[in-house]
Amino acid sequence: MPDGMEQEPVEEGSDHREISVAEFFEKNKHLLGFENPQKSIITVVKEAVDNSLDACEEDSILPEVHVLVDEIGNDKCKIEIRDNAIGLDRETIPKVFGKLLYGSKFHKLQQSRGQQGIGISAAAMYAQLTTGEPVTVYSKQEGEPCHKFIVKIDTEKNEPEIIEDEIVDPESDQFPGDKDYYFDHGTSIELDIEAKYTRGHHSVRNYLKHTAIMNPYARVVLREPNGNKIEYPRVSKELPPKPKEIKPHPNGVELGVVLRMIDNTDSRTISSFLQNEFTRVGRTSAEEICEEADIDTGRRPNTLEKEEVEQLLNAAEKVKLQSPPTDCLSPAGEDLMLKGLKKELNPEYTTAVTRKPSVYSGNPYQVEVGLAWGGDIEDEGSYNELRYANKVPLLYKKSACVTTKAVEEVDWSRYNISQSGGRPKGPLYISIHIASVWVPFTSEGKEAVANYDPIRKEMKLALQEAGRKLGKYLKRKERKEIQEKKKRKLTSYAKEMGPAIAQLAEEGDPEEIENQIQQMVERDYNPEQL
Amino acid sequence: MPDGMEQEPVEEGSDHREISVAEFFEKNKHLLGFENPQKSIITVVKEAVDNSLDACEEDSILPEVHVLVDEIGNDKCKIEIRDNAIGLDRETIPKVFGKLLYGSKFHKLQQSRGQQGIGISAAAMYAQLTTGEPVTVYSKQEGEPCHKFIVKIDTEKNEPEIIEDEIVDPESDQFPGDKDYYFDHGTSIELDIEAKYTRGHHSVRNYLKHTAIMNPYARVVLREPNGNKIEYPRVSKELPPKPKEIKPHPNGVELGVVLRMIDNTDSRTISSFLQNEFTRVGRTSAEEICEEADIDTGRRPNTLEKEEVEQLLNAAEKVKLQSPPTDCLSPAGEDLMLKGLKKELNPEYTTAVTRKPSVYSGNPYQVEVGLAWGGDIEDEGSYNELRYANKVPLLYKKSACVTTKAVEEVDWSRYNISQSGGRPKGPLYISIHIASVWVPFTSEGKEAVANYDPIRKEMKLALQEAGRKLGKYLKRKERKEIQEKKKRKLTSYAKEMGPAIAQLAEEGDPEEIENQIQQMVERDYNPEQL
Repeated sequence: MPDGMEQEPVEEGSDHREISVAEFFEKNKHLLGFENPQKSIITVVKEAVDNSLDACEEDSILPEVHVLVDEIGNDKCKIEIRDNAIGLDRETIPKVFGKLLYGSKFHKLQQSRGQQGIGISAAAMYAQLTTGEPVTVYSKQEGEPCHKFIVKIDTEKNEPEIIEDEIVDPESDQFPGDKDYYFDHGTSIELDIEAKYTRGHHSVRNYLKHTAIMNPYARVVLREPNGNKIEYPRVSKELPPKPKEIKPHPNGVELGVVLRMIDNTDSRTISSFLQNEFTRVGRTSAEEICEEADIDTGRRPNTLEKEEVEQLLNAAEKVKLQSPPTDCLSPAGEDLMLKGLKKELNPEYTTAVTRKPSVYSGNPYQVEVGLAWGGDIEDEGSYNELRYANKVPLLYKKSACVTTKAVEEVDWSRYNISQSGGRPKGPLYISIHIASVWVPFTSEGKEAVANYDPIRKEMKLALQEAGRKLGKYLKRKERKEIQEKKKRKLTSYAKEMGPAIAQLAEEGDPEEIENQIQQMVERDYNPEQL
Repeated sequence: MPDGMEQEPVEEGSDHREISVAEFFEKNKHLLGFENPQKSIITVVKEAVDNSLDACEEDSILPEVHVLVDEIGNDKCKIEIRDNAIGLDRETIPKVFGKLLYGSKFHKLQQSRGQQGIGISAAAMYAQLTTGEPVTVYSKQEGEPCHKFIVKIDTEKNEPEIIEDEIVDPESDQFPGDKDYYFDHGTSIELDIEAKYTRGHHSVRNYLKHTAIMNPYARVVLREPNGNKIEYPRVSKELPPKPKEIKPHPNGVELGVVLRMIDNTDSRTISSFLQNEFTRVGRTSAEEICEEADIDTGRRPNTLEKEEVEQLLNAAEKVKLQSPPTDCLSPAGEDLMLKGLKKELNPEYTTAVTRKPSVYSGNPYQVEVGLAWGGDIEDEGSYNELRYANKVPLLYKKSACVTTKAVEEVDWSRYNISQSGGRPKGPLYISIHIASVWVPFTSEGKEAVANYDPIRKEMKLALQEAGRKLGKYLKRKERKEIQEKKKRKLTSYAKEMGPAIAQLAEEGDPEEIENQIQQMVERDYNPEQL
């Protein structure tokens, strides 16, 4: 009875309607990190700085990021973030800042800080919601004029509404930027938001400090509301290799996604489809997959039944394919992990481990861990944690984060570290970084990483590897302390024994004999050799 | 220089593009509760059952919900959910199941289980992603034909794609439903999903059990993959009063939202705008607000400057307005909280507290707490928790939930309950329910409630109130035990003393004297009177 289409539309009583994604996130702004004025200011800065760093690296520019915060009323701040990145073209600006779910990174398999196309437009939405003010954007590409836009979000449509669109002369007062640092290219944005500027762990300052540590090739300047300027200088002029974009790997990709790829492909045969649309599938592997699935390589992809696609995916699991390439990743590296900890904490011991890249659900990722012990680190009972995802510091939702679950799975007592409630105790900092083409955050606010089994396991392995090194150090230190004690005892014996032996010998010089004993002690109990 | 609009579009190099909300959630399916096959099956059932119960209550129908699970392959299940609700009209069906962010509840301030317009279409999306299968829907309104739809989601557009649209005859074999329970109205859906059917805390069965407990006017039937049928019978034929829809309250509404309301209003004066678009603003309060803000009541709303709207909102804070009405809420009630605990756990003591409604960010909400102690409850070290939001059981993300934070803030030792790490210990179950027109979940999967200060405080107060009662009981019990001990001691004395005294008295009957002493002991140490 497929005549349904001819029926009259029935509308009575239905109050169903479409919800714009901007309306959705306006009402759920806590999902984006806009729970309260103290957190919201960090979220706004974070989203803007993430974009600035991504845009600089995209074009191999050494990043220069300025964050200016002014208090403009009760619980209200004006935030300006300026960068020297490549700049945005005129057509793109309104949508980047005035439309949620719009961006350049979502559809790419490539490590970047932003990935969702929500962050900066959500910041603009938050400004509009709390102060009624639109966002002002200046963006200049090299050799192009500087565009100024004032943009609102039409929340019910999730579309930008352009209030002002003009060109600003670099000589004019309106041209943004510290006159000390004229940027020939870059983007500046200004947002008025409900905000509370605070100090401490959960602060813009701490966020920028840790951003600077993980991105030592960036120069970051913060001007606080009281006019105080803090500079995190560039300590390295070397940009990390730019992560490459990759295609999906046949292992881990969902059936529904492959069916859609088949709908959209230009490839005329299954073999070329497999080779063109996936990574790590060459001609031989494509043929092996088809043979394993008992499907003709030469068929048109769109002739495949759903069951046959499933067979192909299963076959791809059986055929030995190379792991996905990992030049799509840009880890910090053990050196940087160590430097960050040393600079920040002045500990007595540090160690770092960068694991080899691995894959979850077809997404390459890589885990790095650093441990710092003692020195200026105070023993506050439990350990402290520094968490990063794609070089972005994570300040919130520690207990919901996979990093914490991984820490709790390690048996720290094996490494001479006492623990309570599964967590290590002592003057210990643990820093964990995950780099991935797609970090599975627990919410759109990107505050914590979801507890995925393979990720947690990699983290645990890294923690164990670093833990073993720290454990050895602590053991050595303990032994050294015991030996130092013995040595001190023997030395004090020597002082007393020297004269006695001299007397007994009746010919030697007591001081000489004491020295000889001392040397013996030194030789036998040199802690450096233990 | 506002001549920007005349420039040529520059497109080069920009790979910015729109991201459909379906693409976004497909890639972030863990945000919706689709982390793994075991959890995903619960999420699918939950979203469908939530909708069924909402739809029944919407039209005052005593709910009848059937959940049928069949294993159809390795880690694959067919899930059917059937209800006797009002049914959907033909025009609405494809979008309800084939488009994310579409629904009837998002724009209403009224307590309901669903609120986002994501759940059931996300379930369909998950089915399509993991098994490639579209969703099949049968829906029948009273006196109307039964519509059958097979619907896919065009993920890149977030729009439904109708594969089949026909009318099914109630006599035909295709007409869905247990032939025992012919529903003249209702909706049935069928989904093939990647799933793992398990038992235990995290299971469909447990989810339905707790749903039945909180919704005793519903009859819920589960058919497990092995054919085993479990019925949760209807234990009450009384539907709770239907929650009413309300308008926003001026206190707590964001500036940006009011600016938009002004853009959309038909009201011709500020006074009528305030009266028509807000709850608890009558003519007198409207005039008071305007006077406080020094703004003429008769002005057209759209002549207001942003600053004036801010003044109005500030004025509304100062003018004493009544709290929002609370008939938009439908709490479970203390009786039901107690019944649920008793039925489930067979404890030796239960107590429940339903707090008066309160308001966060303009949203009315209400907190209920039940405590159960001892009896069949085993002491597993830490307490156990049953969590509900708008009568929906929450099974996951306990540690991220405001309920847990509230429990940890209570000083349980004051109520004779020992605690460790801030959490109460002993044979204790805590059940917490939040009813609200808008529950702030920590993710789209609606698994935990965000840690909002006012909500946590209300929960803490409810826990303290219930805790005091439990504490009194435990104290009484402790005293009773001490007295029982004394009594036992005295009784045994009596046994020995009776004959001795009798002998001493040389005249009395030893048994009589023993009885008299016994009576004295009874009178003085009756634990019931303590």
